[in-house]
Amino acid sequence: MTTERTSVAILGAGPAGLLLSHLLHLNGIASILVEARDREYVQARVRAGVVEHGAADILRQAGVGERMDREGLPHGGIELRFDGAGHRIAMSELTGRHITVYGQQEIVHDLAERRIADGGDVRFACGPAAIHDVDSGEPSVTYTVDGAEHRIVADFVVACDGAHGAGRPAMGETLKTFEKVYPFAWLGILAHAAPRVDELVYANHERGFALYSMRSHEVTRLYLQVPSTDRLEDWSDERIWDELAVRFSLDGEPWEPTRGEIFERSLAPLRSYVGEPMQRGRLFLAGDAAHTVPPTGAKGMNLAIRDVDLLARALTEQLRHGAEEGLRTYTDRALRAVWRAEYFSWWMTTMLHRFDGDSGFDRRVQTAQLRSVVGSEAHATALSENYVG
Amino acid sequence: MTTERTSVAILGAGPAGLLLSHLLHLNGIASILVEARDREYVQARVRAGVVEHGAADILRQAGVGERMDREGLPHGGIELRFDGAGHRIAMSELTGRHITVYGQQEIVHDLAERRIADGGDVRFACGPAAIHDVDSGEPSVTYTVDGAEHRIVADFVVACDGAHGAGRPAMGETLKTFEKVYPFAWLGILAHAAPRVDELVYANHERGFALYSMRSHEVTRLYLQVPSTDRLEDWSDERIWDELAVRFSLDGEPWEPTRGEIFERSLAPLRSYVGEPMQRGRLFLAGDAAHTVPPTGAKGMNLAIRDVDLLARALTEQLRHGAEEGLRTYTDRALRAVWRAEYFSWWMTTMLHRFDGDSGFDRRVQTAQLRSVVGSEAHATALSENYVG
Repeated sequence: MTTERTSVAILGAGPAGLLLSHLLHLNGIASILVEARDREYVQARVRAGVVEHGAADILRQAGVGERMDREGLPHGGIELRFDGAGHRIAMSELTGRHITVYGQQEIVHDLAERRIADGGDVRFACGPAAIHDVDSGEPSVTYTVDGAEHRIVADFVVACDGAHGAGRPAMGETLKTFEKVYPFAWLGILAHAAPRVDELVYANHERGFALYSMRSHEVTRLYLQVPSTDRLEDWSDERIWDELAVRFSLDGEPWEPTRGEIFERSLAPLRSYVGEPMQRGRLFLAGDAAHTVPPTGAKGMNLAIRDVDLLARALTEQLRHGAEEGLRTYTDRALRAVWRAEYFSWWMTTMLHRFDGDSGFDRRVQTAQLRSVVGSEAHATALSENYVG
Repeated sequence: MTTERTSVAILGAGPAGLLLSHLLHLNGIASILVEARDREYVQARVRAGVVEHGAADILRQAGVGERMDREGLPHGGIELRFDGAGHRIAMSELTGRHITVYGQQEIVHDLAERRIADGGDVRFACGPAAIHDVDSGEPSVTYTVDGAEHRIVADFVVACDGAHGAGRPAMGETLKTFEKVYPFAWLGILAHAAPRVDELVYANHERGFALYSMRSHEVTRLYLQVPSTDRLEDWSDERIWDELAVRFSLDGEPWEPTRGEIFERSLAPLRSYVGEPMQRGRLFLAGDAAHTVPPTGAKGMNLAIRDVDLLARALTEQLRHGAEEGLRTYTDRALRAVWRAEYFSWWMTTMLHRFDGDSGFDRRVQTAQLRSVVGSEAHATALSENYVG
């Protein structure tokens, strides 16, 4: 078994882990990042696509926002479509800020490139890792490649390894969990098709929710609310396109997305999860390892970026100046944004989806709420503030 | 059986019926108002106490706002209290409008005085009435006093007779109903005690919701969320005051309302109800006869006043000029405000009460929503717009 030492051992090469490794490097702090999967897999993994204002600023200030600013699509608004009519929420005019549509895998690509160019120690294809001795002064991470066990002893371990990584179980009994599982899933597709619209369209139709989004001027990203029990094979290309056209209806007429070759499809259940606290001894959790949001609010990656921004500062203060305050208060500070995002994501999800058990009263209240949002500048501003971050 | 003729037969001498009768009189249109109970009972009936901006204007313009403006308490804000801290929503600064705290029974008193002074035909103590032939050109209302049956034939019948009157059943099968019953009730008290605060306090405490309000500088009105199964005899004066002190806690310390003699107490289930349409043939429904809101949003009486304001105009256009448009579109126009109020009342109710089945996730989301409301000027403005009307 090889044993190495570093300041910070990081698990997971998603946006959180890579950005943390980069931010620590900028502050002169060494880290080793261990990722279970290979680099190609990680960079091809399709996830979030909306970068909020504050998260984009963090990336820019870290010097990794150049391609995002060049190729990303700045969006100043979204459309809420219901009762057969579309209503634009003019987020930029209401808040002075905007979002950037730029795929999570592009951010992962940019960060990985940059870490490697900077000589960063980023190890892909390590298989599952384990976390040890977080309550001691010498926490460590182990993983095995080709039968050889590797051990990294660190001052601190940060788990950015998602909902199914080693971070959550390593919290042990100190972890209190808060969960909500929604009774439906999102069927998502990527298609080689020019988006028919310039901004995202969130549609609440009597047959269910649909979302029109895009990754570029050539790639459309579309989602349909489907029952949790549906399987991908239940949905032929034709059925997907037809259903989208119905759910995006305007004035009672189907509204067709521009069709194109579907080159990626996925089915994801909608759930909310928060684990508290986000730290134990010398272990810290960030991003999906600590919390999950349903995608409706487009907050998942943005929370991950906020978490590691806090952590990078706190770890730097501790390791450079021995100041413990930042790490000690990490959970409390991170959770403020987390619960706000959980609230906003829950609110958007319940306002936009159809729930099987909903009565006629619930549906009319849902419509009245949507009318309030699009009819009141204050209400639209409240949505926009949360959306642009 | 006596038979009389009038233009508009009105059922119910609450704020809706009395105001309608008065507004029609101002427009030179005759009406007969039939109320089941006697005048003393109606004027003593304690109900709503918050008059929104628009409703107050309607009363003023009708010349019946003088005492309200003299004795009512103008309020420019409310307090939301949760997690042991109070947060003022500065409604007047956010919207330029305010509410007036003035009891429903005072409005009933003012309107009844005025109708009688104007020689209006307002008949108290008529017992239950029945509505006939609303699909014909000659609808009528009948009631029986001392064994003598009275019949009023009218051009139009307006039912302002509440949730249990003759109006709802007279809609027959054309009525589609939308309902929500909340799994709790409000225990309300009136006490001879100077209010400890100048504005309403809405408290979300882990033991349940509480509301601090007032009717005057000498009378406090207080409410506690209690299980639907509780009975008045379960709540001694002492228990009520003690529980209020706990639910209004600040910084972990009980916060005592000024105590005084409790001279009225009531237990009311919380429910939402909307009947659609609000008209059939020559019958129109207004106020609680057409819809119920939980009291959390303080919208019940205000909707009733809006309904009859619409109806008075529409009936006048029809009876004076033969213009049918106003009556034809009454339901659609009234329902817009009704559903907005149903949404707002549901939103306030779910944000402020404790629900037995709520998970830890639900509670934290509720708190995050309250934080968003008090922390965002836009969100606070959205609440205020709905509250002040």
